[in-house]
Amino acid sequence: MSLLVVGSVALDSLETPFGRREEILGGSASYFATCAGFFGPTRVVAVVGEDFPEEHVSFLASRGADLAGLVRLPGRTFRWKGRYEFDLNTAQTLETQLNVLADFRPVLPPAWRSTDFVFLGNIDPDLQLSVLDQVTAPRFVACDTMNFWIDSKRESLLRTLKRVDLLFVNDAEARQLAGEHSVVKAARTILGYGPKAVVVKRGEYGSLFFSGDEVFAASAFPIPDVFDPTGAGDSFAGGFMGYVARYGSVEPAVLRRAIVVGSVVASFAVEQFSLDRLRTLTASEIMARYAEARRLATFEALEPELFAPGR
Amino acid sequence: MSLLVVGSVALDSLETPFGRREEILGGSASYFATCAGFFGPTRVVAVVGEDFPEEHVSFLASRGADLAGLVRLPGRTFRWKGRYEFDLNTAQTLETQLNVLADFRPVLPPAWRSTDFVFLGNIDPDLQLSVLDQVTAPRFVACDTMNFWIDSKRESLLRTLKRVDLLFVNDAEARQLAGEHSVVKAARTILGYGPKAVVVKRGEYGSLFFSGDEVFAASAFPIPDVFDPTGAGDSFAGGFMGYVARYGSVEPAVLRRAIVVGSVVASFAVEQFSLDRLRTLTASEIMARYAEARRLATFEALEPELFAPGR
Repeated sequence: MSLLVVGSVALDSLETPFGRREEILGGSASYFATCAGFFGPTRVVAVVGEDFPEEHVSFLASRGADLAGLVRLPGRTFRWKGRYEFDLNTAQTLETQLNVLADFRPVLPPAWRSTDFVFLGNIDPDLQLSVLDQVTAPRFVACDTMNFWIDSKRESLLRTLKRVDLLFVNDAEARQLAGEHSVVKAARTILGYGPKAVVVKRGEYGSLFFSGDEVFAASAFPIPDVFDPTGAGDSFAGGFMGYVARYGSVEPAVLRRAIVVGSVVASFAVEQFSLDRLRTLTASEIMARYAEARRLATFEALEPELFAPGR
Repeated sequence: MSLLVVGSVALDSLETPFGRREEILGGSASYFATCAGFFGPTRVVAVVGEDFPEEHVSFLASRGADLAGLVRLPGRTFRWKGRYEFDLNTAQTLETQLNVLADFRPVLPPAWRSTDFVFLGNIDPDLQLSVLDQVTAPRFVACDTMNFWIDSKRESLLRTLKRVDLLFVNDAEARQLAGEHSVVKAARTILGYGPKAVVVKRGEYGSLFFSGDEVFAASAFPIPDVFDPTGAGDSFAGGFMGYVARYGSVEPAVLRRAIVVGSVVASFAVEQFSLDRLRTLTASEIMARYAEARRLATFEALEPELFAPGR
């Protein structure tokens, strides 16, 4: 079924303990579409400037991105400069140049109004709403957000949440959004805001999924080194949504597999700078790590007869 | 098979966001023996003072603790005073009164020298070694430690590690001990110090098990509120070792189940102050939460035909 992402396409400059890179391909829509592309095409709604390198356009197209919704505006492409310390879990933003993103008003090509699966990347919740207004009858809408919007656009964000099926957040965002320290309680509170499901991403620790009475806990695949965590969340969402849209179902067992697919794809994405690891990644590597993730998490039933008498 | 613990028996005073308690039962050996007691008896090697309440002795005995190794010395029982902030993951020590623990020289009753399964609780590694010297031919030795010993008694600790089969540590301790930021690399380094297996405990995030090429990732059971995290690690170890000793095997599939048992028992232990939740906990509650932990972690295989052509 059809899948659409609205988000950013960026040129990132990064400093990590392992090295630095200038003006490499980044942005939520780039990671998302590339990862969803393992399963099928993605309609990309985003904006770039006149300076956006053609090689990146070709690369995204080669991964199944339909770029009919990629607007090229006069001016420079959105740029983000960040640094990761030895603890790679949190990025420190050194500089944000919105450039053409400042005037971005997402407009869907008319043929895309009937898209089935929609991912609202981490942009202004008012823009997320304007995208939803343009989609006629989506089957499943997922969205991402961040501390900045939770702080500064809470009302708009709550309006968006009323209209989405699934929210992706990390633990800190879940706590902030719900005003609850307990992640379990925070997830329950967020479900009360409208989404039918919440995925709480916990970086190297894995993720938790809540929907009604359903809870699923996925451990992150334990990799020795995180090289560049940029885009991990969008890679997760891309793998998740690409799988779900390809499957064409959102029943609980499918969503569980989708979470592990997302987690596995993200575990590859962080192994190299930018989207570099995703460029060489193959379906069989994803299959192998997914199978390993299943072996990692498997344990048998407990034997009642082993308990001491009277306990 | 027989199981022995050497550790502390303490009177704890606690402040948490949920209330405070004075001089309640605590100590690694208390939590360990009570949790192992769900599966079978534990030989307890520890020391208390003249002021140690008889009701605690009766309680531990009622949970299968064999107290022939519990020495009562002139003086006061070991006391620990701690505080937990809103983030319950880390304890702040307000006061430590070693009292009779300062002169503790563990001596095993002669009949206990042939114990099969041994848990060396978090005490001075020289004392851990002295216990090992008294056990003739243990089948399986596990040990715990902490940042204080890693800092101040590294050489002794490394001598202990050469003689243990399994080390329980949390992530911070694993990183400190191995001098590696990556938990995966830290675990591999620690395996090089001698233990055949390492369990890295990650609090509310679950735990990782490493042994040779075997890796197991267990999510923590997601409970809404942690009330008092004191003793969580010893409860984990107690459930783990109690199960393993009762089973009489340390094959990989048994250790996996033991990790989940430990995790489940610990998830109950933190629901109330001190050992209070463990006093009312039943085998059927443990069985139910274990079964729920399996449901939480279950997902099916991935379908290769869902990948896009050419990926």
